[in-house]
Amino acid sequence: MIITVTPNPALDLTWHVDKIVAGGVHRAETGRARAGGKGLNVARVAHAQGAAVRALATVGGATGGEFALELRESGVPNVLVPVAAATRRSIALVDEALGDTTIVNERGIAPTGDEWRALFDALGEELVGAGESSVLVISGSLPPETPVDILPSLILVGRAAGARVIVDTSGPALLQAADAGASVLKPNAAELAAATGLSDPIAGAQELLRRGVELVLLSLGADGMLAVTGENVVHARLDAPLAGNPTGAGDAAVAACAVLMAEGTTDPETILRRATAWSAAAVLMPLAGDISDTWPALEAALTVAPYAPKDV
Amino acid sequence: MIITVTPNPALDLTWHVDKIVAGGVHRAETGRARAGGKGLNVARVAHAQGAAVRALATVGGATGGEFALELRESGVPNVLVPVAAATRRSIALVDEALGDTTIVNERGIAPTGDEWRALFDALGEELVGAGESSVLVISGSLPPETPVDILPSLILVGRAAGARVIVDTSGPALLQAADAGASVLKPNAAELAAATGLSDPIAGAQELLRRGVELVLLSLGADGMLAVTGENVVHARLDAPLAGNPTGAGDAAVAACAVLMAEGTTDPETILRRATAWSAAAVLMPLAGDISDTWPALEAALTVAPYAPKDV
Repeated sequence: MIITVTPNPALDLTWHVDKIVAGGVHRAETGRARAGGKGLNVARVAHAQGAAVRALATVGGATGGEFALELRESGVPNVLVPVAAATRRSIALVDEALGDTTIVNERGIAPTGDEWRALFDALGEELVGAGESSVLVISGSLPPETPVDILPSLILVGRAAGARVIVDTSGPALLQAADAGASVLKPNAAELAAATGLSDPIAGAQELLRRGVELVLLSLGADGMLAVTGENVVHARLDAPLAGNPTGAGDAAVAACAVLMAEGTTDPETILRRATAWSAAAVLMPLAGDISDTWPALEAALTVAPYAPKDV
Repeated sequence: MIITVTPNPALDLTWHVDKIVAGGVHRAETGRARAGGKGLNVARVAHAQGAAVRALATVGGATGGEFALELRESGVPNVLVPVAAATRRSIALVDEALGDTTIVNERGIAPTGDEWRALFDALGEELVGAGESSVLVISGSLPPETPVDILPSLILVGRAAGARVIVDTSGPALLQAADAGASVLKPNAAELAAATGLSDPIAGAQELLRRGVELVLLSLGADGMLAVTGENVVHARLDAPLAGNPTGAGDAAVAACAVLMAEGTTDPETILRRATAWSAAAVLMPLAGDISDTWPALEAALTVAPYAPKDV
């Protein structure tokens, strides 16, 4: 069983506009509303690939109602903890002429103390029933003014229940997650440098391993992904980068890792191949939380080799 | 009594972003959600200035629920007709660095035949109780696939009940509104040229008068406004244009006209002065549907004179 926790979920709204003109007035077809936030994207991908998953999130207000309705229609099993503050919105304007997407993410509003406790209670119940090889995924931002012990506590609860814990976060929370017992972290090079103060991403990843992490999946964007463990560094990449929508690519990588670990697979190279393939397969899809059915061909086409950093 | 009909209402969502970068990811505080559409803006302004008003609109879906909740909290008296399709959204991204606003308006979904009939029934009931000097305001776009007789029928229902009818529309609907008996129309020069095929705005306005309109309020943007009647053309303007948010300025002009007519005032120059002052006072406010309390000073500062078109 995979349990995803999304501490700062969002109602994702997407509009497609012919060409965005700053300061202009545009007409658009009805936008797409979707239950979003990184943990939801992970749950969607894992669910679509047949994994047993439970998406855990808070919901509040009219936006929370829409979030819950869409999530129910999606078929992704979920547990939603009601909170007083309205679920935040995330806005994506897709410029059809340029192909780029302008995103505005509301920061969100932190749950109250009682609401955090209700989320922990719900998580505890799910972990009790999760069984062998369970995986806890904690993904995405924390709302402003979240108490500093929330992320470590979520990780500790997961570890205490015997689950592997995958954390997708950035900033100071990255080191905090390593110290609290995260099994897998998935930063990119910039996030790693910002958190560790080490400009060399391999050295940064090794700092996370030193703090107890088993595996660091280090995203290199279009240049693929590294799996860094205490033993070695392996690099997976496609020969040519794919054009498309990179939003949700990292979530697909986390989903791959979670699905394999929930099946009992912990071999870093196997995880790296699947994570890189699903990440690329996410780029081919217009919405975060979906991956292309062509992922097996992408996985077969990967070049996987010991990492040889290019000269900078 | 002023009754506003908004055939294509919208949940207006506004976010303030430090500086919008195309293709970038931005963080923002929680956006403002407001019951919108031009008719709602007219009703808000009239209500805030103490006029008896009733805002009539359709609402559907989760966005409609949020629309209804916000409208109730605003205190503007309203009659909402439930429809199956979700109320559309209108998105405004305010670039705090540049001061400009990028707008994306969903086109909206037309009510069904039964739902249009329910809207007409509700309008009929309001008109029966509206009393002397009642004014019907029909503002804003019509949803795609709206039957072509809807706008003329709304106008005819208003006229049959003895109301003056103010219509704020554009495109072919402008001539249609004139033919159906609209009392006042409020196009800008470009809308008038597009609808009448006449490049001279005075000639365009006179074409509307020829079809039976009493008064054309012709917006000139920062250069003020004209009142065109069968007798003369009067021009009102501020000596220096105001910097601010022009969204909703036209709605404030319509509100001024509606409030005066509901008080029994039909003098075109009096209406022109108030409409120009409220329009300018709307530019000073961040949200459409609000006008600055300083409007009496703006009205006093207006230059009002017979119209002398500048050389082009």
